[in-house]
This record gives sequence, C-alpha cells and structure tokens, in this order.
Amino acid sequence: MIAPDQTGLVAHFSTLLFNLGTNIDDANNHRENGTFFQRYVVTIDEVKRIELEAAFYPASKERNARFELLDTSEPERVAIFAGKTDHCLYELLLEHKQGRLPADIRMIISNHADLWEVANHFDIPFVHTPKSNGNTIGMEQVQLDLLAHTGVRLILLARYMQILSPEFVARYPERIINVHHASLPAFPGKDPYQQAHDHGVRMIGATAHFVTADLDQGPIIAQASCPCDHSDTVASLRAKGRENERKALVQAARAALEGRLFVKGRRVIQL
Amino acid sequence: MIAPDQTGLVAHFSTLLFNLGTNIDDANNHRENGTFFQRYVVTIDEVKRIELEAAFYPASKERNARFELLDTSEPERVAIFAGKTDHCLYELLLEHKQGRLPADIRMIISNHADLWEVANHFDIPFVHTPKSNGNTIGMEQVQLDLLAHTGVRLILLARYMQILSPEFVARYPERIINVHHASLPAFPGKDPYQQAHDHGVRMIGATAHFVTADLDQGPIIAQASCPCDHSDTVASLRAKGRENERKALVQAARAALEGRLFVKGRRVIQL
Amino acid sequence: MIAPDQTGLVAHFSTLLFNLGTNIDDANNHRENGTFFQRYVVTIDEVKRIELEAAFYPASKERNARFELLDTSEPERVAIFAGKTDHCLYELLLEHKQGRLPADIRMIISNHADLWEVANHFDIPFVHTPKSNGNTIGMEQVQLDLLAHTGVRLILLARYMQILSPEFVARYPERIINVHHASLPAFPGKDPYQQAHDHGVRMIGATAHFVTADLDQGPIIAQASCPCDHSDTVASLRAKGRENERKALVQAARAALEGRLFVKGRRVIQL
Amino acid sequence: MIAPDQTGLVAHFSTLLFNLGTNIDDANNHRENGTFFQRYVVTIDEVKRIELEAAFYPASKERNARFELLDTSEPERVAIFAGKTDHCLYELLLEHKQGRLPADIRMIISNHADLWEVANHFDIPFVHTPKSNGNTIGMEQVQLDLLAHTGVRLILLARYMQILSPEFVARYPERIINVHHASLPAFPGKDPYQQAHDHGVRMIGATAHFVTADLDQGPIIAQASCPCDHSDTVASLRAKGRENERKALVQAARAALEGRLFVKGRRVIQL
Repeated sequence: MIAPDQTGLVAHFSTLLFNLGTNIDDANNHRENGTFFQRYVVTIDEVKRIELEAAFYPASKERNARFELLDTSEPERVAIFAGKTDHCLYELLLEHKQGRLPADIRMIISNHADLWEVANHFDIPFVHTPKSNGNTIGMEQVQLDLLAHTGVRLILLARYMQILSPEFVARYPERIINVHHASLPAFPGKDPYQQAHDHGVRMIGATAHFVTADLDQGPIIAQASCPCDHSDTVASLRAKGRENERKALVQAARAALEGRLFVKGRRVIQL
Repeated sequence: MIAPDQTGLVAHFSTLLFNLGTNIDDANNHRENGTFFQRYVVTIDEVKRIELEAAFYPASKERNARFELLDTSEPERVAIFAGKTDHCLYELLLEHKQGRLPADIRMIISNHADLWEVANHFDIPFVHTPKSNGNTIGMEQVQLDLLAHTGVRLILLARYMQILSPEFVARYPERIINVHHASLPAFPGKDPYQQAHDHGVRMIGATAHFVTADLDQGPIIAQASCPCDHSDTVASLRAKGRENERKALVQAARAALEGRLFVKGRRVIQL
Repeated sequence: MIAPDQTGLVAHFSTLLFNLGTNIDDANNHRENGTFFQRYVVTIDEVKRIELEAAFYPASKERNARFELLDTSEPERVAIFAGKTDHCLYELLLEHKQGRLPADIRMIISNHADLWEVANHFDIPFVHTPKSNGNTIGMEQVQLDLLAHTGVRLILLARYMQILSPEFVARYPERIINVHHASLPAFPGKDPYQQAHDHGVRMIGATAHFVTADLDQGPIIAQASCPCDHSDTVASLRAKGRENERKALVQAARAALEGRLFVKGRRVIQL
Repeated sequence: MIAPDQTGLVAHFSTLLFNLGTNIDDANNHRENGTFFQRYVVTIDEVKRIELEAAFYPASKERNARFELLDTSEPERVAIFAGKTDHCLYELLLEHKQGRLPADIRMIISNHADLWEVANHFDIPFVHTPKSNGNTIGMEQVQLDLLAHTGVRLILLARYMQILSPEFVARYPERIINVHHASLPAFPGKDPYQQAHDHGVRMIGATAHFVTADLDQGPIIAQASCPCDHSDTVASLRAKGRENERKALVQAARAALEGRLFVKGRRVIQL
C-alpha cells in the first residue's frame, strides 16, 4: 500500500486486520517526502480474503491510498530472458530449484540457442526467438505473444544483451528487471568492464534495476560490488563481476516475487 | 621506474643491483599496453646510493625508462588541507601518530578556523588562510608561498571544500590527493550523497584521486564502499560515508608516501 | 518488552497506544522459541507518560511480559574504561561529538595515565585509577564508587586490558560492553592477533559483547571483519584490526544507548 | 621452492634463469621465520625444461631448498567428492566450464546417487560408491583404487559429508581440500550453522582447508564471510552461507591448481 502520509494510517489498517481476526505475520513500513509505504503479510483463507478486500479497498480509496493484494499461494509467473552468458541464468535456476525463489518459471526466452541445455537440465521450456534479418520488431512480437499466452507477470533479464523497444517496456511497467554489469549510474551502456578498466576504478559492481524506456536508467533495486586493482584486466574484471551480477539479480528477483518493492519516482522502497 | 616494455629489463636492472652488492627488500612490477612499471626497495648507504644512481641513470636513459630514486630515510613533507569537517583530518593525524604514515606533516591549512584545536591536539601547526571577499587567488598565493617555503611535496585534501585553481594544480602535478565522497565516476561535483539518495543506490562509496584541472576526474588511487538502502536519509548516508572517506584517503596517502603510485593516463598503477 | 509468545500481543499493545492517542514513530519485533520481543518508539509528554505506564505495567504483568520504559529525553550516563590504546576511545569520542552517540559521557577511567590528553581534548573528565601493588580489588572499589556517585548506567570497555572481577560484573548485568579483537568464539583470551596469525586465517575480526563472569563468552552484540593473508604479520593484523574494533564497539554502544538490545540466553536481539 | 632463508637466493636463481635465456612471466616470494618461499612462472619448451631441471636441482640441494617443477601444459587431474548438496559442485563445474579452473576433472565420487544428473549435465563421469552396511573401509578402498587408476593428484571435497579415514588422508598429504561451513577455528565439526545461531554471531563464514588427520584442523587456504543478525534462522544462515562456501572452495581450488600454495606448519603461503 502506498498512501499520502496522514495520521492514523497504521492504526486504522491494523485495526481493520484485527477486527477481521487476522494475525499479522510480518509488517514493514517507510515514510518519505509525504508518502507512506506499508506491507503486511497475513495468512488467510478465501472467505477472509473477500472480507479483507471488501474492507481495504474502500478504506484505501478514502485515504487516496493505492492498495494491492498479492496472493502468494500460487507463485508468480515468470519468464527469464537470456543471451549467451550462463552464470545469471544458472543462479536463478539453482535458487529456484532450492525453493528460494517463489516463482513459476514458465520459460526461458533467448535470441540465441546456446543455453537450451541449461534450460533442459532444469526442466524449464526453452524458446529460441532469433532475430531474422535484424528484425527486432518481429522477434519482440513473438515474445509478447508468448508472454501473454502464458500469463507471465514478471520478466527477468539474465544478461540478455538485446535492448527492449519502448513499446515492449510499456507493456510491463515495473515488471521487467535487468542486471547491468556496473554500479549504475556509473558506466551505463556498452562494455562497462572496459569503461571501468579505462577509469582505473578500485571497485566494480553490478546493478539490478527496473527497465524503463531510458537505457540503464530505471529505478535501482539491488547492487553488489567487490574490490579490484590495477592488475585486473578487462577479462579478470568480467570474471570477478559474475559474482556481483548474479547476486544483485537474485536479490532483486526475490524481493519482487515476495512483493516487497514499491517504486516512487526513481527510487525503490523495499519493505 | 616506467619504461617501454622490452626483453631483459628485469634481468638487467636486478643484475645491476646484484653487482652493486645490494639486497632487494621488495620488488613489484606490472606490464600493460607496452609499458613496464617496476618498483624496488633497497637498503643502502650514501656511498652505495651514489653508485646506484651512477649505474641506473644511464641505463634508464638507454632504455627510454623514467627512473626515480625515493629516499625514505626522511619522511616526505606533507601539508593537509581541511575545511570544517574533521573525520578525515583526525584519521590522517591518528595514523600518523601511530607511525603508519611515513610523513613529515608540516602544517594543516584551512580556509576556516574550526579545526585548529584538532591540529593543536596533535601538535601540528595550523594555518588559517581565509578567503577575503571571495578572493581565491590571493588565498591560494598565500598557500603556495607557505608550501614552497616549507618544502612540501605532497598535499592531502581532507574534505577541503574549496576547488583549487588550474594554476595551483599545475604546480603540483600528481602531488595533490583529494577524497571525493562518491564512487567516481558516479556523482562528481556537488552534494554526492544527495545525488546518491535521489538515485536510490544500494552502495555508497568514496574515492581518493590525484587532483587535475578537471574537477573529480583525476586518476583514481583508492576507493571504499558500503551497503545502504531505501531507509537511509541523506544524513545517514553522510554518517555512513565517513568511514569510506577516511579509509580511501588514508590508503591513498600511505601508498603515495611509500612511493607506490605510478600514473599512466587516467590509470594509477600501485606497486 | 519481552513476553512469552501469545496471540493478540501486538494488537493489544498497539491498541493501548492508539487509545492513548500516541503515534508510533518506530516499531520492531521479533519472535523466537516462544518468546516475543517488541520495541516501540513514541514521542510523549510527562502526562502521557504516566498514563502509558499506568496502562502498560498491569497489561504486561497479566501477560507475563517484562516491560521497560526508556526515557531518551536525557541521554544515558556512560563511563568509558580505557587502557593505553587510543583508537577505540577516539572513535567513541568523535562519534559522540558528532551527535551520533546519545550518551552523557561522565568520565573516562583508566589504570594508565597515557590517554588523559585525549580525554582533555574532548573535554571529558579523566580518572586515573592505578593498580597499587597489583591490588585489583582496591582499584575496582574506587571505580565502583565513582560509577555509583555519578549515576553511570552503561560502561564501555574501549580496549581496557584489565579483567573485571565477577563481583564488579555482577553489579552491572547487561550494562558492560567490551570489544574483543577477534571473531568470537574464535580466539578468546590473550593475544588474539598472534593466535590468528598462527592459525593462518584469511579473515580477522572484532566482537563487541556484553561482559559476563566468563571471559570473552558474553552475548555477542556486533562483529566486524576484514580480509587478510599470509603476508600479514601480527603487527599488520593489529593495524588492520583497529578498524574492526572501533566499528564493532561503536555499533554496539549506539544500539545499547538507543535501547535496541534484548538479551535471551547467549543471544542478543537487536530491534 | 622452499628454502632456509640465506643471502643471494633470488640473485642466484634469477641468474640461473637468465643464463638459460628464460623470461620470467611472474615471480612472487615470501619470507617468514627463517624460511624463504619462491614461485616463478616461466614459459619453456622440453629442451629448456631439461636444462632448467639440470641447473635447479643441484643448486637447490646445495642450499637445502625443496624445489618442485609444476608442468601446467597439462591441467592437473582432479576428483571431486560430493554428497547430497549441490551448490559447491555446481560452482566448481561452472568455473571449470568457463576455463577458470585449470583442471582435468576425471570424475565425481559420491556416497549418494543424488547428484549424478549434475555430473551428467557437465559431461563428467559420476561414480557412486555407497557405504554398504556402514562399511567405510570398503568404500574408501574402492575410491582409492579409482583415484590411483585415473592418476588423480588433487581431491576436492565439495560438501562431502563423510569423514575420511586417517589412512586415506595419509595417501594424499596436502592434496585434499575440504570446505567447512564456518570461519574456522570457530565451530569445527557438526552443524556449524546451528552452533553459529546458538552463539548469536553477527558474521558467518566458510573455510577451505587442506585435510589432515585432525577433523577441520588442517591448514587454512581461503575464507569468506558475510553479515547476519538475530533475525536469521539456522535455515537462512545455511542459505546465506552457500555463497561463502562456494567462494572459499573455488578460490582454494584455483590456487592449488595454479601451484600457488606452500604449507609451513599450520600456515599456508599463497604466492
């Protein structure tokens, strides 16, 4: 729930929950610049759920609050987009297999065929959507159809090296997460490890962020970094950076799947 | 020593040292893009020193190498520039007092009077050079005279919030070290913690770098960073960042004082 | 508040606060092994305070809860014990000076005279309580009298190298914080950096913990660590470790002063 | 090369190399307690190799030095021992596939059948050596035969939860690397995450070490750690710790495969 800050918000909604006889498993909130963010975790059955919605929606409307109920009884439907690089894909699939990513991974989509064996190993459908004659629009249309048909609600770009069109992005606002191999806003765009090497930095990082129409400018969700020094080559930065990339992406994916992320302007609140 | 890379460099110079009967206490080198960087540490007396110079200078010239002999029997003369913020100044003076910064700190220079008690506590002369009527040129002239008279060879800017003029900088090439409170090249210039907050980053950092005519663009020497999140305010970022700032500055200062830093373009090699 | 876990705890106490017309500035809780820990931050005047106590004490008793009200309008009275090493003392005093440690530091007590100038620089009374003829009991009696007379409620051992007697410790249960220069439970007791070196560890750490009658065995509050390697000597481990020590101690001191620490057995809950 | 420290060691051996017309690609050394450790990397052909051995062995003997020539033209033969947990195994196989572990992985040996699909996915032979009726001796005999027949020289225990017998360990001195899920010497033996939780530590770690007859007491090669707090359960410590474990194990494996590790007592020198 996101609401203009006002007195009695917590009291009102926690009383609503109390009156419904609902225990609060977890509660987090945050205030900034006149906005109040709140996340409750409750365990309820179908009947309670209807009662809760009946109580919360009007109460939210009254207070200009944006309220959303996320049902975690079924994991969210997810598609992973990948290119030729495998470490982020492996990490997502390994975490998923261990039960640490509450996702229903419907498919892996790639413009290359390289990683189908990885998908196969984890028993996830792999869809190869090649770019025919540089036709990105046609490729994206195929992808969008697939996503629509399978009811995917969250897209994870696991080192997918293709830039999504503004039209594509507009279809999934705050629902596409990319990992960029730099500590954004430093080194956006191409070859960030080469840029980092040229600048002689002593820390390299990776950033998971929501994708917007502006390349590598979307709201930041998670970042990881590690030390490096003059003796690092671009290749060794790339090797070291893999750990940052997979860490940032998995953290961001998990937070999104658990319904913890609230976007306000270019800032992400994680409750 | 910096030289165009060529076969037999190590062999030749280590044999020179061997022939002089000199033990090598420490040796480090680095190769990149056709340039070879070498640092030797040797313990020698005055006679050996003359012999060594007599042998090394012609040998270096022959090989187009830039050779420099740094006498560490006397610690380097240093001036610290500070403003109103004390944590970087304290850190330098504490490290110095503990014998972990081989420096002869000649004075602390400030355009404010706030920190004289800190200087006094550590028995270091404090010089207040106020800016009269916004006259930076006059102030800098006073400072340059002081530095010249006291034979200062390294200047540490410990959160000195005044931008040095290009003329000032030109007098001390690769001899002025600043600490900027961001992970450069991200957030150069004013209010980096405010910028970091606006971007909602998940890591904040600090960067110690050589000062050049381009603000916050000089070669990076050391960086430190730590995690942060949405709940951090600009004030709490500032508080957390203090640790990064003093860490980066002290590391850079120590490396400079031990003669470990070699600049090549915008990159610093630390041997 | 610490209570046996039971349904309706949050609801009941938050309703009590709501009925008193009190806004909750911050709220944190934790459950483990049938125990429920809760911390509320509220801003109230003297009248409300009396009402709140009148409501909370009986409600707590009914539920077998241990309730405590911490008045932060006046910072807690603190004594720092130090030996000959200055970095932890400096850090506490610098943080305090910056307003980041809500403490009323009544005095610095030391069995050595070395650090009186540090105390003097920060305008804190320094009390030298030397050990005459190895008479620890007499020295402790002097210290205990001082603490009692000045109403000190929290004691910070900033690298105080004297072991407190069980009798001393018993007077201030969960009110004495020590920093040990190792990642406890590894390397308790003497010369932890020597022990770390002998074991060839690749990480060194420091631990801030409550002092109990068992040396270096009290509940852990905060830990910090950093990498090291084979080339580190005991001296360089000591130098690197200073950063860990002051970080762990300040974190622990701040948490204690803000009333965030709840002890359960050998575990500390920080809310 | 490990030698009693003496003057002229570097000069002598580097001159030997120079006289053979051999360029030194990389050189590292370390001194401690009267022992000198040296590692050279050179690129030579078969003829030079014979000359080098002819020169180095007598020169080493003269100086009481232990000299060893490691031929990296063929990667070292390795066996991985695994149990039921997959993350360390995956990490080794992924790093290997990426060309960042110079190893010839001959097989994966396990007392459980769970991970054969992982082995299969990476095209590495999987050998299931079950323990029949608790007969560890018979199982170890099968394993030792396999290792002998395939010429394996390095054994990596990737969360293999079976304790090797002293007889087994004695066959591969300084050739078996284990990863233990704690910051040794803290929490050796069983259930280290449970122990860490009981102690309420604020950092958890993992340690890669050479296996000796004393459980979890062998020389430490690499360690990794990350922060944790009171809210972590044993399960969440286990999940967080996976990153430490695979990091420490891969670092140690790589260092061993590159011939960087020298053991002296309980300390490991990594050059």
